[in-house]
Amino acid sequence: MLSSGKRLFSALLHVQNRPCQPSRAMRLVQFQTPHLEEPHLGLESGIGGGVVDLNTFDPTLPKTMLQFLEQGETTLSVARRALATQLPVLPRSQVTFLAPVTRPDKVVCVGMNYADHCKEQNVRVPKEPIIFSKFSSSIVGPYDEIILPPESEEVDWEVELAVIIGKKGKHIKATDAIAHVAGFTVAHDVSARDWQMRRNGKQWLLGKTFDTFCPLGPALVTRDSITDPHNLKICCRVNGEVVQSSSTNQMVFKTEELIAWVSQFVTLYPGDIILTGTPPGVGVFRKPPVFLKKGDEVQCEIEEIGVIVNKVV
Amino acid sequence: MLSSGKRLFSALLHVQNRPCQPSRAMRLVQFQTPHLEEPHLGLESGIGGGVVDLNTFDPTLPKTMLQFLEQGETTLSVARRALATQLPVLPRSQVTFLAPVTRPDKVVCVGMNYADHCKEQNVRVPKEPIIFSKFSSSIVGPYDEIILPPESEEVDWEVELAVIIGKKGKHIKATDAIAHVAGFTVAHDVSARDWQMRRNGKQWLLGKTFDTFCPLGPALVTRDSITDPHNLKICCRVNGEVVQSSSTNQMVFKTEELIAWVSQFVTLYPGDIILTGTPPGVGVFRKPPVFLKKGDEVQCEIEEIGVIVNKVV
Repeated sequence: MLSSGKRLFSALLHVQNRPCQPSRAMRLVQFQTPHLEEPHLGLESGIGGGVVDLNTFDPTLPKTMLQFLEQGETTLSVARRALATQLPVLPRSQVTFLAPVTRPDKVVCVGMNYADHCKEQNVRVPKEPIIFSKFSSSIVGPYDEIILPPESEEVDWEVELAVIIGKKGKHIKATDAIAHVAGFTVAHDVSARDWQMRRNGKQWLLGKTFDTFCPLGPALVTRDSITDPHNLKICCRVNGEVVQSSSTNQMVFKTEELIAWVSQFVTLYPGDIILTGTPPGVGVFRKPPVFLKKGDEVQCEIEEIGVIVNKVV
Repeated sequence: MLSSGKRLFSALLHVQNRPCQPSRAMRLVQFQTPHLEEPHLGLESGIGGGVVDLNTFDPTLPKTMLQFLEQGETTLSVARRALATQLPVLPRSQVTFLAPVTRPDKVVCVGMNYADHCKEQNVRVPKEPIIFSKFSSSIVGPYDEIILPPESEEVDWEVELAVIIGKKGKHIKATDAIAHVAGFTVAHDVSARDWQMRRNGKQWLLGKTFDTFCPLGPALVTRDSITDPHNLKICCRVNGEVVQSSSTNQMVFKTEELIAWVSQFVTLYPGDIILTGTPPGVGVFRKPPVFLKKGDEVQCEIEEIGVIVNKVV
């Protein structure tokens, strides 16, 4: 796996170096600079690029992604105009990236949703999605630190494709679901295995929701900017070593089915986030198990979307 | 139990009829009237009383409880002044009560937290709190309808004392915890037992979080307005028949311990809600089991706090 992982790494580097890839991708971010009083909305000019300040381009735009998404087509069309215009780009070095969505109503998570991850655990592929959650308070930015809690000895990594909802809905049909997706981002579903698997009456919540356990970003890449969300290379590296390497084509339940499933139970709102599950290679199923320690650096990367880098402290 | 339930019912009626009980209780509400453009904050003038419009009293006050709580002592002192002033009272008939808190960051729930409820299930009292959650989207007002989802055959009742956080904190000590409490309200932790107990990989979330599964209210009763939150009669009636009747003195982990426990994992924010568990008498453990059906009316009542009434549709 490591060898194929190295090939993936090179491939991803190659992608990053292509100057205009994806050429007209809309990559929405929340960012801060030393000169701004409060966070602004922006457009990341490609993977690893600088940021165009959308609130400077149009001061009537809201300043949070949640409000931006709630206004739907109105605000999106402004962002589209900005994307088509030559605008000043803030160098990346001057910008602090926040999570592309903060304070959503829901962070929905899906368990055992990669066929290859089920195989690794020796469990059957589930017949229905298994849904759990994190509290929004666990969300941090794409380059923020993951705080290792003294309460856990078994903090593990999980790279995931995250779907961000753009349109309110209940009982959404799978065939209509994609219209409810604003876009996608990279998520790290940091997991304290001791608390997830053996404590708290086996309810996973606590192990999944420590503060800083949900790095997200760097951008919300709109759905029309992604070639095929279910055919993207997905990879996690710890201290540079590839530990997870798969494709979103291994997802058991795809975006549309997950939205249909979850919206049977709850109304989905703009800004709600669905973490779609992780591929194999997590630490807990290694022999012997491996867990994160202070000083580790975790990179979670998804083709066409980008990479988040979080140091463990 | 029914006989003691009837005594409780009479006692609660007695409480409701006392004209000034609790005499200077601060009962914060979110409400709407046909003449208002958006919901306002108000003071309920005693259990079952009318409402004083706080936003008319002081137009600089925020209009949501979340923002009100975030401003802490500043806004609370305005509410205290309003409470000490003779102000016009909107008759209850002209007011629609919303949940006292909407869109909190977290709805934290505690399982098996009443000694007598553990006995009913034949399980040992847990050594640590068991924490699960609902999504905020499940919150509805104190007199709103509970929508019976077609996806469940086993929707059950659970009256609970809810704690509302007033001050941000992490790793809060039990001895400091009460300073983080804004107040208390009545919650109904509506539960689809099929989804909670047998589906979804035994993760309770889905069975607990259907839309409308978290009626709250009618008021946030501030902590200094409650004689002793851990010695309150608590009761649930279905179509007038007492089905749960206990005291919050049966809670295994009290408010302070729960705040200390939960804040080990997550930062608590103003507006966060902790549902502290339910006493015995739920439908699923009856022989034969009893579940809610369309047309049922559920009343959840806690001494000194009030009663919420939700029809099942």
